[in-house]
Amino acid sequence: MEILIMKMTAKELAEALHGTVEGNPDAVVSSFGKIEHGRPGQLNFFANPKYARYVYTTRASVLLVNRDFVPEKPLDVTLVRVDDAYSALAELLNYIASQRKAFRRHRGRCRIACSARLGSKVWVGDYVTVGRRTRIGDKTRICDNVTIGENVTIGSRCIIYPGVHVFANTVIGDNVILHAGCVIGDDGFGNARQDDGSWKKIEHLGNVVIGNDVEIGSNTTIDKAPMESTVIGNGVRIDNLCQIAHNVQIGDNTVMAAQTGIAGSAIIGRNCIIAGQVGIVGHVRIADNTTIGAKSGVIGNVRKSGEVLFGIPALDRTQYLRAFAKFKASAEE
Amino acid sequence: MEILIMKMTAKELAEALHGTVEGNPDAVVSSFGKIEHGRPGQLNFFANPKYARYVYTTRASVLLVNRDFVPEKPLDVTLVRVDDAYSALAELLNYIASQRKAFRRHRGRCRIACSARLGSKVWVGDYVTVGRRTRIGDKTRICDNVTIGENVTIGSRCIIYPGVHVFANTVIGDNVILHAGCVIGDDGFGNARQDDGSWKKIEHLGNVVIGNDVEIGSNTTIDKAPMESTVIGNGVRIDNLCQIAHNVQIGDNTVMAAQTGIAGSAIIGRNCIIAGQVGIVGHVRIADNTTIGAKSGVIGNVRKSGEVLFGIPALDRTQYLRAFAKFKASAEE
Amino acid sequence: MEILIMKMTAKELAEALHGTVEGNPDAVVSSFGKIEHGRPGQLNFFANPKYARYVYTTRASVLLVNRDFVPEKPLDVTLVRVDDAYSALAELLNYIASQRKAFRRHRGRCRIACSARLGSKVWVGDYVTVGRRTRIGDKTRICDNVTIGENVTIGSRCIIYPGVHVFANTVIGDNVILHAGCVIGDDGFGNARQDDGSWKKIEHLGNVVIGNDVEIGSNTTIDKAPMESTVIGNGVRIDNLCQIAHNVQIGDNTVMAAQTGIAGSAIIGRNCIIAGQVGIVGHVRIADNTTIGAKSGVIGNVRKSGEVLFGIPALDRTQYLRAFAKFKASAEE
Repeated sequence: MEILIMKMTAKELAEALHGTVEGNPDAVVSSFGKIEHGRPGQLNFFANPKYARYVYTTRASVLLVNRDFVPEKPLDVTLVRVDDAYSALAELLNYIASQRKAFRRHRGRCRIACSARLGSKVWVGDYVTVGRRTRIGDKTRICDNVTIGENVTIGSRCIIYPGVHVFANTVIGDNVILHAGCVIGDDGFGNARQDDGSWKKIEHLGNVVIGNDVEIGSNTTIDKAPMESTVIGNGVRIDNLCQIAHNVQIGDNTVMAAQTGIAGSAIIGRNCIIAGQVGIVGHVRIADNTTIGAKSGVIGNVRKSGEVLFGIPALDRTQYLRAFAKFKASAEE
Repeated sequence: MEILIMKMTAKELAEALHGTVEGNPDAVVSSFGKIEHGRPGQLNFFANPKYARYVYTTRASVLLVNRDFVPEKPLDVTLVRVDDAYSALAELLNYIASQRKAFRRHRGRCRIACSARLGSKVWVGDYVTVGRRTRIGDKTRICDNVTIGENVTIGSRCIIYPGVHVFANTVIGDNVILHAGCVIGDDGFGNARQDDGSWKKIEHLGNVVIGNDVEIGSNTTIDKAPMESTVIGNGVRIDNLCQIAHNVQIGDNTVMAAQTGIAGSAIIGRNCIIAGQVGIVGHVRIADNTTIGAKSGVIGNVRKSGEVLFGIPALDRTQYLRAFAKFKASAEE
Repeated sequence: MEILIMKMTAKELAEALHGTVEGNPDAVVSSFGKIEHGRPGQLNFFANPKYARYVYTTRASVLLVNRDFVPEKPLDVTLVRVDDAYSALAELLNYIASQRKAFRRHRGRCRIACSARLGSKVWVGDYVTVGRRTRIGDKTRICDNVTIGENVTIGSRCIIYPGVHVFANTVIGDNVILHAGCVIGDDGFGNARQDDGSWKKIEHLGNVVIGNDVEIGSNTTIDKAPMESTVIGNGVRIDNLCQIAHNVQIGDNTVMAAQTGIAGSAIIGRNCIIAGQVGIVGHVRIADNTTIGAKSGVIGNVRKSGEVLFGIPALDRTQYLRAFAKFKASAEE
């Protein structure tokens, strides 16, 4: 598939993205494409060094690169240099996406409680239910087959994709995106063992509080707390199929890749980068700026900011990989 | 968020929970709260030793503790001592939750097959479909956007949360909770390789049978068997995003934390405790009372009751951690 | 549960499955059953050597076995020998399932855009939405509570199970099965870090392209690419709760068990067998015919066809297990 954009010259692109042209300022692009398959008329971009060799083979008309990029060979393609090619691309995609979002501003076939209050230009799809006393901010878009419980607060300019379920008392900020099928505010997993070996359910009466500018992935689940709140900070990004247990707190701007799970009452700092399929046990505290490699299992507190962890159980990444090199070598002994 | 409860004195709480007061019997509480943030007028509880220091700093009016708790310093807070503070809290939350569940007893906009039979006081939400010959017991509650297939049996006093999909021929006992988005009775993953490298689908004609007092987490999937049944015993608790493959059997009162997966035809004993992100391969048999640590990968039978396992592949936990200590130390050599 | 089939004699079964009878050709079966619990009147099958002992204890009337099976003791049961018992069983289950699929050919309560084009004998369930300019091929079945976006192409004879969400511009071939709750074509996880530590969303304008004869598991998520396409080849089988990130390509006939995740832009070859809970990092290339053991974490390219990997990080399986044997023994030193 090729994404069509309006026709733009290299010069116009450079102006829009605060960049500079190197090559033919009149080179025209009308679509995006990946650098591996660059074709004439396309705009490509280059940021990941893994793809460096394609810079010299792409037949694209314009290539977006970082300002400090130094080619190793002469180039055919016209360059547009910007401070950060990846961010500039994001801006451009964002601009095009915004042009496309011509929301139908109607109400679908839905059941909205009488006591719910919807702001202006709220879009509600088909087969949606909205519970009593729920408040939804201006320009928020609720897609098809969504259920929103009672006494929920959702801010402005949010997108709630199809099949999302938001439970009672959840609080959601502005500019939040909930992707398809995610579940916000279901009961946490709390059971008290009885003398006969059976389990008694701990009822959950708390809620989930999500800040502004948050994105939650498809089919991810965020449990409410038994008391008080599970808290997702501002600017947090959570990928698909993640599990956030009851009472967890996640600091601002922390990102988490797919299939990661955080057990109950863990407190995750700000600006952490947590890769995919990571597990973090309950009741620990992870410092700000922690980086955790994919598949790691964190079983204790991380006290110092800026650590890089890996492994099961997780150690300092360098230490783990040094021990693993010996583990690997031991097979040959 | 603060959860309001009716005003109760320490004395009344002690009577309700079969406990004893230590301190001011007339101390009044009107809300719950976590011990870390205890405020006047609140009821806190203390069971996890990790939180011991907060016992001496909470400003809550009443603190629920185990009968055998021995403070290390003098306390300001009034204590209510009970046999098991965690269970007592569960009881109290349960009581409050039961007060809140004033079900609307109506039928929403839904499609219920003519031949389906619903018991008395069954609550059915909006955009629900119920298939032919399906039977639903008294006081069961089917939330919005649920689909229930043909010839399904669901017991009494169950809660089927929004977005759940229950497939044909499933049998579900009494007091079962299916959390949002879980899928019960979809096809197992069965494919027979053909000579040309392609796969032929194995049709699944069996079903899933779930006992009484079971709780299944949000977005968890339980596959039906090709023949016969996938069986979930009484009192089982399965957390969010778990995968139970075709033909699996899970014994009574076994609990399983989030993102764990059990491969096809595995037989899990009773009273097992399986942590999060565990994997168990197919066709194995796990003895009763087995404990499996988070992220472990179990690749063989566990024959003796009461074992504690950890690691990939899983070993006896103590053995694994001893070997891991040497692995870790080897990085320094 | 016992699955009833039409009454058949051993001779009739042998003819239907191109096999030969050994024992009583007039032995009659009327239901399926597992070999562990074989009862008179049942058809059992034997393919997995783990179940060999039951061959001599089953009381079933007929047993389906591989042509080269050599019993170690005299047998009571009548055998039907076929080239491949597992495939023959698949064929039989398939036949029975096909007899059962008497689709109601109606349109439920649904919202289908005027500009959508549906082929002949398309079945659409209740509470379904189909977006503008979407095309759906003949005999495809869309179950309840499904949402299908704009400009989607779905081929013929597909089954889209309840609660599936297919996003705009997705292309799906013929004979594809999307299981309940799976999400196809949602935004990938792309974020560009800003100077203040916050993240800017990368808009995703590409799509997902799925070939013919593909099966996607329940609650699995497949993200669309920011530009161009995420591609799932012909004959691919993906189990439940898997995550396929943006720009991934999966070759023909590759299978993937539950809870596996493939990070962005990874290219997976053809005929690979990927077990459950595996993780593959982004931007790698995995050769055809690679086998990856459960829970493995693959962090680099796999260049040679036919390799067998295991571990975190993944090594050659034999090498890993040899090193692990020493790791395990080190606990005793």
